[in-house]
Parts: sequence; structure tokens; C-alpha cells
Amino acid sequence: MADAAQFLGIGLIGQKFMGRAHSNAFRQVGPFFGPALVPRLECVAGRDGPELAAFAARFGWRRSTTRWQDLIGDPSVGLVDVATPNHLHAEPAIAALGAGQHVLVEKPLANTLAGARALRDAARAAAARGVHAYVWFNYRRCPAIGLAWNLVREGRLGAIRHVRCHYLQSWGGPQTPASWRFRRDLAGSGAHGDLNAHSIDLARFLLGEEIDVVHGAVARTFHPLRPDPSGAAHLPSDVDDALAFTATFRNGAIGTFEASRVAGPHLNRNTIEINGERGSLRFDFEEMNVLHVWDAEDGAREGGWRRVVATEAGAHPWVEHWWPPAHPLGYEHTFTNMVADVLGAVGGHAPTVPLADVADAYETQRVLEAALVAAREGRAVPLADVL
Amino acid sequence: MADAAQFLGIGLIGQKFMGRAHSNAFRQVGPFFGPALVPRLECVAGRDGPELAAFAARFGWRRSTTRWQDLIGDPSVGLVDVATPNHLHAEPAIAALGAGQHVLVEKPLANTLAGARALRDAARAAAARGVHAYVWFNYRRCPAIGLAWNLVREGRLGAIRHVRCHYLQSWGGPQTPASWRFRRDLAGSGAHGDLNAHSIDLARFLLGEEIDVVHGAVARTFHPLRPDPSGAAHLPSDVDDALAFTATFRNGAIGTFEASRVAGPHLNRNTIEINGERGSLRFDFEEMNVLHVWDAEDGAREGGWRRVVATEAGAHPWVEHWWPPAHPLGYEHTFTNMVADVLGAVGGHAPTVPLADVADAYETQRVLEAALVAAREGRAVPLADVL
Amino acid sequence: MADAAQFLGIGLIGQKFMGRAHSNAFRQVGPFFGPALVPRLECVAGRDGPELAAFAARFGWRRSTTRWQDLIGDPSVGLVDVATPNHLHAEPAIAALGAGQHVLVEKPLANTLAGARALRDAARAAAARGVHAYVWFNYRRCPAIGLAWNLVREGRLGAIRHVRCHYLQSWGGPQTPASWRFRRDLAGSGAHGDLNAHSIDLARFLLGEEIDVVHGAVARTFHPLRPDPSGAAHLPSDVDDALAFTATFRNGAIGTFEASRVAGPHLNRNTIEINGERGSLRFDFEEMNVLHVWDAEDGAREGGWRRVVATEAGAHPWVEHWWPPAHPLGYEHTFTNMVADVLGAVGGHAPTVPLADVADAYETQRVLEAALVAAREGRAVPLADVL
Amino acid sequence: MADAAQFLGIGLIGQKFMGRAHSNAFRQVGPFFGPALVPRLECVAGRDGPELAAFAARFGWRRSTTRWQDLIGDPSVGLVDVATPNHLHAEPAIAALGAGQHVLVEKPLANTLAGARALRDAARAAAARGVHAYVWFNYRRCPAIGLAWNLVREGRLGAIRHVRCHYLQSWGGPQTPASWRFRRDLAGSGAHGDLNAHSIDLARFLLGEEIDVVHGAVARTFHPLRPDPSGAAHLPSDVDDALAFTATFRNGAIGTFEASRVAGPHLNRNTIEINGERGSLRFDFEEMNVLHVWDAEDGAREGGWRRVVATEAGAHPWVEHWWPPAHPLGYEHTFTNMVADVLGAVGGHAPTVPLADVADAYETQRVLEAALVAAREGRAVPLADVL
Repeated sequence: MADAAQFLGIGLIGQKFMGRAHSNAFRQVGPFFGPALVPRLECVAGRDGPELAAFAARFGWRRSTTRWQDLIGDPSVGLVDVATPNHLHAEPAIAALGAGQHVLVEKPLANTLAGARALRDAARAAAARGVHAYVWFNYRRCPAIGLAWNLVREGRLGAIRHVRCHYLQSWGGPQTPASWRFRRDLAGSGAHGDLNAHSIDLARFLLGEEIDVVHGAVARTFHPLRPDPSGAAHLPSDVDDALAFTATFRNGAIGTFEASRVAGPHLNRNTIEINGERGSLRFDFEEMNVLHVWDAEDGAREGGWRRVVATEAGAHPWVEHWWPPAHPLGYEHTFTNMVADVLGAVGGHAPTVPLADVADAYETQRVLEAALVAAREGRAVPLADVL
Repeated sequence: MADAAQFLGIGLIGQKFMGRAHSNAFRQVGPFFGPALVPRLECVAGRDGPELAAFAARFGWRRSTTRWQDLIGDPSVGLVDVATPNHLHAEPAIAALGAGQHVLVEKPLANTLAGARALRDAARAAAARGVHAYVWFNYRRCPAIGLAWNLVREGRLGAIRHVRCHYLQSWGGPQTPASWRFRRDLAGSGAHGDLNAHSIDLARFLLGEEIDVVHGAVARTFHPLRPDPSGAAHLPSDVDDALAFTATFRNGAIGTFEASRVAGPHLNRNTIEINGERGSLRFDFEEMNVLHVWDAEDGAREGGWRRVVATEAGAHPWVEHWWPPAHPLGYEHTFTNMVADVLGAVGGHAPTVPLADVADAYETQRVLEAALVAAREGRAVPLADVL
Repeated sequence: MADAAQFLGIGLIGQKFMGRAHSNAFRQVGPFFGPALVPRLECVAGRDGPELAAFAARFGWRRSTTRWQDLIGDPSVGLVDVATPNHLHAEPAIAALGAGQHVLVEKPLANTLAGARALRDAARAAAARGVHAYVWFNYRRCPAIGLAWNLVREGRLGAIRHVRCHYLQSWGGPQTPASWRFRRDLAGSGAHGDLNAHSIDLARFLLGEEIDVVHGAVARTFHPLRPDPSGAAHLPSDVDDALAFTATFRNGAIGTFEASRVAGPHLNRNTIEINGERGSLRFDFEEMNVLHVWDAEDGAREGGWRRVVATEAGAHPWVEHWWPPAHPLGYEHTFTNMVADVLGAVGGHAPTVPLADVADAYETQRVLEAALVAAREGRAVPLADVL
Repeated sequence: MADAAQFLGIGLIGQKFMGRAHSNAFRQVGPFFGPALVPRLECVAGRDGPELAAFAARFGWRRSTTRWQDLIGDPSVGLVDVATPNHLHAEPAIAALGAGQHVLVEKPLANTLAGARALRDAARAAAARGVHAYVWFNYRRCPAIGLAWNLVREGRLGAIRHVRCHYLQSWGGPQTPASWRFRRDLAGSGAHGDLNAHSIDLARFLLGEEIDVVHGAVARTFHPLRPDPSGAAHLPSDVDDALAFTATFRNGAIGTFEASRVAGPHLNRNTIEINGERGSLRFDFEEMNVLHVWDAEDGAREGGWRRVVATEAGAHPWVEHWWPPAHPLGYEHTFTNMVADVLGAVGGHAPTVPLADVADAYETQRVLEAALVAAREGRAVPLADVL
């Protein structure tokens, strides 16, 4: 925040969980990263007016509005951040891009592949005019994932043989009330789009490699009726409660993916394990500061998983901005780390590790779609068939 | 070993790893279980004569022979135990059954489904004459699996949603020499038949439930050429180094299975996790005395995986025969526990937990076959299509 | 931050590690806790002027000064926060208390028991006039410790038998340069005062019980000479690199304590385990969101350590102010949680869990002193002998 | 067991837990180690005649007797193995040594230091005549401890700073009936002699280094009255339920030791951790096949505890005699491994790793005594004061 600091006006759409997480990231990036381009919390849009005022006051937003359209083209707003439910992602994002504003958007891009393609095309056109558009795949910026990315890039894993991803939650039992998350028209899919999306992104990000075939998938809706929030009736649920699929990457590695909202003891278990000929990595979000590392050079007699606390100097790209070694970060820091990199990218600097831009997120969406087709049709689906 | 003890003469075919493991189990069952029917190590058959003599002397076999046919119909041999390579399982087993001898046979039943069916039919015919035939699915008798079986039977898991099995090893790298294990004509398949076989059996055993569809599978041969043991040349390998598949059980639960011989840090990681609405279980053979248990009744605030050391009174059916609480068993005890139950079954007593008989093992073989078809043809395969 | 919000002007002394941690807490408490009494970052004092200006700008301090004395009695400063090296704690704290300002002070109170007693007396006198004084024992407000405190209060542990504390670090090898931390005149002691202080506080806090005898202690200075920061020479180090002691609590429980700066693989391993007749708890700061819980009622057959992720509703007093369930907090949140409770206490509300006030911290200091005497004199030291 | 095999006649005293464990070891060493000197289970002595006959039959003892004196000087008995309660160790051991028979004896040597000294002197005199006498410190021969010993010998730890031992059990609650284990005249001490004995031996064994000062100790008898086995009355218990002490080794390393029979969730948690400047090791008997290893050369960024499964070739001295890699051993194998080494030593071969002979065990007993004095007198006790 030197004298020469320039400001980037932020317009946020959404005031719930993600609205809070993003607001915090915009607030915190200044003190901890001292970016050349400083976010100014210009205006927040949300539908519940009274709640919105309190929200804006707490997080320091200068203004608020109940019409997100107010943000579009507002000259004080250089970046529009979309943190709404799934079916409301694409429209405001496309509008902002059309107005020449940078965009941050929550995943998924849209509820249908066609909708996602529209956003991708809009972002592509905007990019030609120097406009940036990124997607909130925040898990890329966990401490341990930052270290993992470094190790893969250094060639420590050798040829990759296995990628094993689980994203397991348990909040979707039969008593959980119906909401937009259980309607295909509003959410696109269930656990699949919500959770496998993160896993696919992490796998693609860490490997730097695309999936080329989904070999089979199984989806289950264990609870096709859910209580109306009022409790008076039951409403249908037509999304998957769990979906598992197998895939291969272009380099021949086998990928297994499983997402669930009914997986007993698991609260938010987002895990990825990669087995290579020379090394292996294992990450579990429940210990987001820890990376398990195996190095073939340790040999048979004394090789084994090494539990690495990724808080030391050089461990990951953001470590120096936070606390001294051995002091863990939490969930929210993944967002702040990402904002720091977005500000850098908008300012012309290469990000520390790749950001998921809209084109990148579209590739993830194609894999999600291939798995849905595979589950529905009981067959292997080459990605080449999903455009 | 009271005065009234009766003896069951054992004839063993095989003197390698499994020959040793079985011999030890026959020796140890007496001191620790004091069975009513006591095994007598009558004769061992193997092809390497000089090595065989030393082996027989060490483990206390009364006689040895280089012709396994000598055991068939030998009146001193009441039970023939087949511990040979895969392609040599069915023939001696069928011969012994035909001679009215009880049979123990290593898995898989045969290298082809047709071969397995022949053995199943022979066992079925023999069973009608009171002859027993069991398959060495020894992992059913790990301490923690015994406890798991008890908990499932007590209804502690509620409706099952997920079964997640991995059997990961790492000995199959590119330097591993060609052997019968890498030839489809001798081994049937690779990691799949060797490792997924155990996982499928464990899942079926614990759930008491059959798989009804394989939804997709992917197989990979990462190393299609392997060094000749002499080192002078390379020989082709035509089995899978790894195979993963998704399935559903008749009760709707989703099953994921993955077997590999090239999975980096994993030596012998045979794991199964079961998520039910009311409880969950997790087993890892690397800690074979430990079962992880989750009970939904512990509630959100203080629920979590409980690490249970399955060495206490009542933990599993064999615990009282071994050491006082808190003293772990090892790999070999799974075989001795099984021999104890086989002796009981032959003597007319219900086993503590179900034994895998040949008919049971045939069901596992059908699932293996369905996964091979799914991988080959890129489609879902209902078990009803595999007879 | 409602209209009726009142402000508490903060004056901070210190701009290093703790200065950043405290500044962040004062900033973050507003958005996340919405306290009735809102901290205003009024003035920060530090010795390095140019660095101080940048620091103040980053964290939003209104003013800065190189003279901490400027804060004393400043009518805009209602609370003085002391975040300086150990030997500079007592003087400004006593001065602020004398001026009727509330005080927050880093531990230890002072480098000598006499110095600590002076501060305790000053705080006692100020308390009579309604002035608050608290000590930054922030680990009391880790998520898992909050849950632990709840469980102990609910009587879940029964009679306590064992308290086992380790605080192990590894940064104190022979290459670590001399600094004030290695001089007894500036630091009081080494690993003991730095790390055992936290352990003793946590044990006293969770048990609600005082130590009455130190039964023996051993201190070691493994590296009596350390490189001058310039590298040109070696300077003496006269503090302990490690100190271990045994103790008993008034209720008869045995306590073992060990602190080290030369403990190989341990970065910041602050652990406490409590064994009671009916339950046990285990905490490790490396997994600060996780509490391991054992409940005797689970019985022998299926009892075991339960791994509880303390992020669910009701888990700890601060959980509702942060993120939805299953999203972990980090190191810095312990400070923000504490500020929230301090603001409440100053405003007349009972804290969620007890705050360490100066009188409380003095009891911890007495135990530290008793252990030093025990180590020096090779004898058991009743706390009654340390006044 | 070649033709040239020579036999060593074994006489065992005791038929309870240890009698079974030792009998099994004598039986199993032949098949798995093929020793040049083969144990012959000649005669077992025990007080309960009818039970003894069944025991002898099960384990294959040729003869049995209710008078242990029958074994002394029996020419068919070359080695007398003493597996009786503590107060009955020294007398038969001394008698056998006097008769020129080799001796194996359970720890502790005796209930008093004077008694232990008498056995040590007898063993010393016998050794001059070529008679061997070893003590059953079987944990030295866990797989992971074998690997640990190798790594220490290879200099992988550098200068040792910390040794941290816990041996925690939980069977000693208030309902546990009175037995000889709770009487000082029969047991010597409680948890201390039973459990700390193993910890001290392991520490001395792995370090190859003696303790020179006990700096303080605390003992507690939480339950001074225990129910009579009949349930009609309560009997006094005058041994420690738990005892903790701090010590230093001659090389300056700090040792902390804690033993308990009332430690909540811990069934048989025998742990040792060693922190050296260049490496660290951690062992927990609950995972007896696993050694955790830290190597300073892994560096700050990616260093951490490595979980090593000690089943691979070269991992420990006995691994090749058991199963292929990745198949865990159990509790009983520690005894068989030890018998193999004892047979080798009696036959003139250096053991793979040092055996605890009587002189060695006497050094452990001196440390136990020093801790008892320290607890009783509230002072540090140099080992030089305990003869």
C-alpha cells in the first residue's frame, strides 16, 4: 500500500457464505500482501435489503444495492465478483465482461454445458480486449496444494500412474430440507457439480494434464423426496446425492473420482492422491496445511509417507506473506491468496501458480458433463465427444 | 487335543509362500484352538524334490511327493489343500472332490469363468455327498474384519450408501521381471484377479449383499514388456497393472474398487470403507488389528472416526484363543483362524463367521469377469449377463 | 457494528510478529463478531520509525509513535496492548494500569517472579477501579481447546489421573544466532518460559485446578555458545534449550511437562493430553481444529480415540461467528477469538471461557519458577514455597 | 533342522501368559529360523497339575512336573526358562545357574535391588564357566525396533537430545481386584517395575548409553484399596498405579519416562521417541511393524515424519525368516525372534542385536531403584549412589 498504490473497485454480487468469504479476502489482501493494485470494496449487491445493509457495514462496503445490474458498467467498479447460486452465475458475468469489467465468478460456470460455453465465449472475446475472468477454484491455493504444485513441477513424481480423488460430505441425509441445491434446473447436478468439480480442477491443475476418457460412472439419488422447508410436505429431489466415475488422462494415468453428500463421517473431506513412478503426494483438506509426500529415492527399507507441514519458508507461494513457520492457515486464506494472485494478474504479473480462468474452468465442466452422460447411458465417453 | 481328539489328514500341494502360510496354520491351530478335529500334516506335494524335503522336515510333514496326484484318493488324506499358481487350482481341486476329499483352494478358482464354473459344479456335486470345499479368502479373518462383521450384523451401520475398496501395491514397476503373474494364459488377469478379488470378497462378506451392476471399468498395462528373468531380453506382459471399476450392490449402495501393482508408496494396502446412514467402518490391512468406527449417535459436535484396537474380549471370534487384550496378531494368524473354522465346519459346527466356500467364491469371480468385460467393451455390465 | 456501537481506542506497543497478530485480531473482530464495543486502531508504538509507518498504513492504525510513553494516559487510548520482548512487558503495562487504561500484555508477565508480582499488584489495584488486564494466552481459544473446555466442564472426564504436556520446537540448533531469547537477563529463561508457560496455562485452564508440587526438573543448555548475528564471533547463551519437569495437581493428578527448542522434527508441537477415569482428551496444535476424545462409555470392545473435527455447531464458543461447519480456522483466529472475549469482558459480559487475567498468569509464573528452582537445586518444590 | 542338528533341552517354569508365549516361541523357531541348535520342549513345571497336563499336551512338552526343582540339574534340560510371578524369578534362576544350566528369566530380576544383585552375581560366576543367562526384554525384537537399532548404529540420529518414553495402560481402575501385582512384597512395585522397566531397557538398548541421574520422580497410588477377588472385602494396594520421572543420560540427553495402569484410552501403549540433531525415531507398540523416521537432510521445506513399514528386505534382522515384504508380524514373534538369537548365542554366534543378559538387566533395575528413591525422598538421585 505504497504511495503509488492504485485501486481496483470491486463490485460483489452475493452476501451469503461466499459473499462473506470473498469480502474477507478483499479486506485482508492489503495488510498481508501489500499489493500494487489495492481492492476498494465499492459496492455489494444482494436481494435482502435490510440484511444487506448490515453486511455492507460489517465488511466495509462503501455502497450496496438490491439490483446487481447497477454494478454493470459502473465506472467505479473495475471488477465484478459473482457469488450467487449456480443458475445465476453466467448472466451477470457475461454482462460485466460485455461492459469491459474484469470478472471473478464462482464455479460452476453454468448449469448446462451450453450455458458454460456462452460464458467461455464471452470471456474469450473480452480477453482479446485485455479483460480478465477467473473462477473461484480456491482449493488451488491451500498451503499444501501450493507445495504439491511445486513438487510436481520439479519433476519429483515421474510418470503418473494414479490420481485418486474423493470429495465426501454427509449433510445430505433424508432430513435435509429441499433447496435449490436439490433441483436440477437450479443446480445442474448435485454432489457431482458441487464437489467433483473441485476434484477435477485440482487434478488438472496439479498434473497440468487433461482427462481424455470417462470410462464409466454411477450416480445415485438415495433420497428422491425431501421435506419442504416448512415441514408440511415433501418435494422431489432430482439431482445425484453421490456420483463416482473412472477416467484416464492423456498421459495414460488412471483417475478415480467420487463425490457424496451422504458419506457418513465425512464433513468436508476433499482429498487427492497422486502416485507417480518416482514420487507420490496425498492431500486432505481436513489437514489443509499438511502434504503427505513419498519419494522413491528413500528406498524400500526406509521409504514411506512423509508428513510435511507446509508452513516453512519456500513451502508454497504465499507463505512469506502470513505468519512465521509452523503457524497454520485456515480455510479463508485460500481466498485471500487467490485475490492476491488475481490482483497481480490484472496488474500484468504472472500468478505464482496458474489461476483458473474461464477457459480453464470450461474444461472442467466438460469432464463433469462426460461423467453425467456416462452415468446416464452406461458407457464410456471420450472427451472428444463433449464439446 | 484331548484323548478323544480325532485327526484329519492333510495333503498340501505347494511349498512356496502360501505353502508355508498354510503349513504354519495347520501346526498352530492345535496349541491355540484345541480343536476337536486335529489336523495331521500327512503329505506335501511339490515339484522341487530337494527343496521339498527340507520344507517337509521344517514344518513337520510326515511325507512328501513330487506328484500331487499321489494325494488324490489317499485314504490317509482327508483334506487336500491347493496352494499352487492360479492356472493349477482347478484340476487338483476337482480331482480331490471327485475322490470324496475335502478341499481348500487358493483363490482364484480358475483363470477363466468357465474353469471356475467347472470347479463350482464339482463342489456342488461333492457337497451333496457331505464333502466340504473352501477358498482361502483369509482376510475375512483379520481381527478388525471380525469386529467389522459383528458390527454390521448388529445393524450398527443402517442403510449402506458407499463401499470403497482399494488394494494397492507397488512391486510391479518396469524392472520387475516377467513371470507367470504377467501372462494372461497363466494368471487370468493381473492386479485385478490378484487384488480386486480380495476386495470384492471382503465387500460381499461384510455386507452380505451381492453386486448387481458394474458401471464401468478401466484397465491399464503400463509396462507391456518386462525383462526376462535372465536379463537378456524382454518378454511381453498382457495383464493389467491396475484396474479400477465402479459398481452398485443390490441394495443400491455404490461400490468403488481399485487395484494396482504400481501405486507408489503402497506396499500391501488392502482397505475397505463402508458408509451407512447410522454408522461407518474403515479397515486398512497395514493396521490389521485396528478398525475405525463412526457412530452417527455420537452427534455432530463430537462425532468422528474412532480408532478401535480389536484385541479386547469379544472384539472378534478368535480373540480368546490368542493373547490377552492389547497384544496384536499378525498376517499369519488369519490363516490359522480360518483353519480353526474349517475344522469346525468339517466337524459339523457352524463357523464363527461365514467361510468362503466354492459357490461363494464363484460369485466373486463373476464380478471380476463383469469388470473385465466392462473395461474391454466400454460399457456397463449387469451381473445377470455373466453366468 | 450497529448504530449504537461504542468504540474502544487501542494503543499497541510492538510491530513484529505479535504486533501483526494483534493488529489483525483488532481488525477482524468487527466483521466476524459484530461486537457492541468496537476496537479503533488508534496508535501503534515501535522503535523503527520508517518500518513503523508502513506497518501502520497496512493495518490501518490512525497514528504511530516511536515512544510508547505517548500512549500512556492518552485519552483516545482506552486499552494498551503490550507486544514487546519479554523484559519490556511489565513497565508499560504497569504504567497504563496506573493511568486507568485497560491492558493486554504478552506472556510472560516479567522475567523474574518479583517483576511479575509487581505487575500482578498493579493489576489488582487497578481492578478495584474497574480496569481490566489480560494476558495473551491465545491457545485457550483454539477451536479444539474450546471444545475440550466444554467437555471438561460437563464432567465428561471424571477424576483426572494424568496431564501430559509437550511443547516441542526445533529452531534452536547450534547455527541459530544469538539473540535476546538466549540471554537470561532479557528473556528470563529459554524454552521453559517461552513454551512451558503455554502448557502450564492450558493445563490449569482446562482442569480448573492448580499445581501444588513440582517433583523434579531437568534443564539443559546444549549450545552454550551461539554465533553472533554478524557471524564474526560466538556469544554465550545462558538459558535452557530444553526443560522437563514432573508435577502434581491439588486433585492428585500427575502432570508431566516438557519444552524444547531442539526437538528434531517438531516445528510447533504444542500438545496436551488429559486422562480421566471416565474420559480423555488429546490436543495437538498442528491440528488445531481437531480434538481427540475418548469416552469410557464406549466400552472395551469398541472404545478408542475419536477424532473430532471441532468445526460443527456448538463445538466451541466462537464457531458460529466464522464459517459453516467443516471449514477449519488457522493460527490467527485464536487472537481474534480472544479479542472478542476481551471486548465483551470490558463491556461487562462474562467471557465464553475464562480469560487469563494478570492474577491468573501470575499463578502460571509461580509454577515456572518452581520448576527452575527444582532444576537448580535437584529437589521437589512445593508451590507453597514460591510466593 | 538338518541331520547335523543338535538339540537343546528346555525346561520351562510357568504355564500362564508368559508360559504360553515362551512355549510358542520354542515351537516356532524351528520352522522359521532353522537354527543349528534346536530347542526340545523337555519339561514344563507348574503348580496346577491338571491344567498343566493339558498345557503340556497342547504345546508338545514331553513331560511336566509340579516341582520346579525337578528341572534343576536334570541332564536332559540344558536351559531353564523362568516365567513365574516377580518374586519367584531369582531363586530358580540362581539354582539353575549353579547347576550349570543356561537361563532365560522374565524381568524384573527380583523385587529388591539386593535380590537382583544376587542373581547378577550368580550369572557372573556362571558366565565364567560358559553358562548363558538372558532376560526376556522381548520388545527389543519388534520389527520396528530392529530397524531403529540399525538406524542408530548407522549414525543417522547424530547427537541425541531427547528420549521420551511412555508405557500407558488402563486396566488398573478401582474395580480391578487385588492380586500379587498390587502388593509391594510380591511385585516390588506397580506400573513402574512392570512397564518403566521395558521403557528403560529400550532406551538403553537403542542409545547404547546409560542413564546417570534421575532428576525427580512422582509416584501415585490412586486406589489404595481394591476389592478382594471374592468381592467380600477390600484389600490394601501399596504399589504405584503410575510413576513418572525425568533423567539424563551420560551423553547429556534428557529422558522422560511415564508408566501408568490408569491412563484412560491406552491399552498397551509402549512408545519411545528419540530426537537427535540429524534424525529422529518414534515407535508405538500399537503399530509394532511401523517406525516413524525423521531425517534432517529432508530439509525444512519438505521434511517430516516418515511412516516406514518395517517389513521390507533388510528392515530388521529377522525379516527374511518370516513372510514376504508387507506382511506384518504380531506380538508373539518378538519372543520367537529372541529365542532364535539366544540359540545362536548359546551356539557361539553373536546375536543380530544385543541380547539383554542378566548384567544388562541389572543396570535397568538400578535405574528403577533410583526413580523409587527420587519419588520417596523428593530429590535428584545420581546413579552412582545406587549400587
